[in-house]
Amino acid sequence: MTRGLTIFPVAGMPEVRPKDDLVGLVIAALAKAKERLADGDVVVIAQKVVSKSEGRIVKLAEVEPSERAKTMAAEGNKDPRQLEVVLRETKTILRWERGVLICETHHGFVCANAGVDRSNAGQPDAVVLLPLDPDASAGRIRDEIARRASARVAVVVTDTFGRAWREGHTNVAIGIAGLPALKRYMGQTDPEGYELRVTEIAVADEVAGAAELVMGKLDRCPVAIVRGVAFAEPSETARDYVRPAARDLFR
Amino acid sequence: MTRGLTIFPVAGMPEVRPKDDLVGLVIAALAKAKERLADGDVVVIAQKVVSKSEGRIVKLAEVEPSERAKTMAAEGNKDPRQLEVVLRETKTILRWERGVLICETHHGFVCANAGVDRSNAGQPDAVVLLPLDPDASAGRIRDEIARRASARVAVVVTDTFGRAWREGHTNVAIGIAGLPALKRYMGQTDPEGYELRVTEIAVADEVAGAAELVMGKLDRCPVAIVRGVAFAEPSETARDYVRPAARDLFR
Repeated sequence: MTRGLTIFPVAGMPEVRPKDDLVGLVIAALAKAKERLADGDVVVIAQKVVSKSEGRIVKLAEVEPSERAKTMAAEGNKDPRQLEVVLRETKTILRWERGVLICETHHGFVCANAGVDRSNAGQPDAVVLLPLDPDASAGRIRDEIARRASARVAVVVTDTFGRAWREGHTNVAIGIAGLPALKRYMGQTDPEGYELRVTEIAVADEVAGAAELVMGKLDRCPVAIVRGVAFAEPSETARDYVRPAARDLFR
Repeated sequence: MTRGLTIFPVAGMPEVRPKDDLVGLVIAALAKAKERLADGDVVVIAQKVVSKSEGRIVKLAEVEPSERAKTMAAEGNKDPRQLEVVLRETKTILRWERGVLICETHHGFVCANAGVDRSNAGQPDAVVLLPLDPDASAGRIRDEIARRASARVAVVVTDTFGRAWREGHTNVAIGIAGLPALKRYMGQTDPEGYELRVTEIAVADEVAGAAELVMGKLDRCPVAIVRGVAFAEPSETARDYVRPAARDLFR
């Protein structure tokens, strides 16, 4: 594995707006902090700024809610326009109870409100959606960093998702480039010779969670660098985290 | 929050056996690596070594399986003695399908096989159980480190749990001392003045996941130090992660 990790926030990022040059903003913020990206660094970026730079913002004033959205909004005491956006981002509704809406997104991720969020939208009465293809976003950011900062980094695009059974949200990977999603111990043996049959560790999710510890929701710090991660496994995508519905015991 | 984190493994731990002085082994391994614990460090310890030092090991030869364990073992192609131990550690079975057993433990944690595991038991034909009270274990370790290493650390006892909807396991906190479980953003506002209503970040779980990145299952590295975590919130316990069944939409 690795001797040790260091994780530091990229301070001084401005508010990110549609069509902004996100990679340029990250490189400039790093330069101002006298930091440089190194080969092997993992650049962890909150979905919110990726989505905003990609224009994945919807002004609620421009949304015409469907009858279904209106009915559900009345049931759950929600804004029907925001609910309409959530429904458009949803492939399947897993739960709709007590105003809580747990959705499978078109990507296959299971999360509240299909990842549609009103906070930190950068403008009033607007919501931010998840990137259309967060793995592709991560790949583009990675390629651009290679080109413009001459560093072979990995990129993880993250969002904070709730989970079943445990209180609290954790930061997880919704887009990955240059890093494995899962570290597999299957078929290997422990020191007593007992075979580890099914252990797969969600390392990119753990990287996302680690980075969250220095990011923070209020102080506009959407990017962190995780240095010292050394994986031998091939690169995967966050789609590798999607458990097929047929194999999921909790739908 | 914090400027940055460093995370490093505590190398050179021997196999831990019942009644071993776990804190003494950690302090000795750190000394040998010329590392010292500092105030504010988080000492992350895999449940497996905590359990072993507390004697939470069961030799399968000494287990008399119940009729229920025998029936289920036949259904699921399992060892009836191991299944008997799992059932004793289980408060409620959430799922029993295709040989997969998802349990609520007596602590309230939801995980496969009630946390009973045969790998890395340190002896053949034995299983390791979760600590009886992992928060109390974390508290004892913390107090002992304060006394014997003169450092005011926090302690997180961890296990790797699967989750709904997403492939892979992540390291999570099952015992906490000196650290908050949840960082709460409720009632605070984002830069646009939008109120963050329900965000709670499971920071001790994120610390556990971060530490796992340097731990590893095969190379006998069950302890890691996370340095630079600075929480203003009061200490909590891992019981704060237990979502009451009545409020859980996925049982």
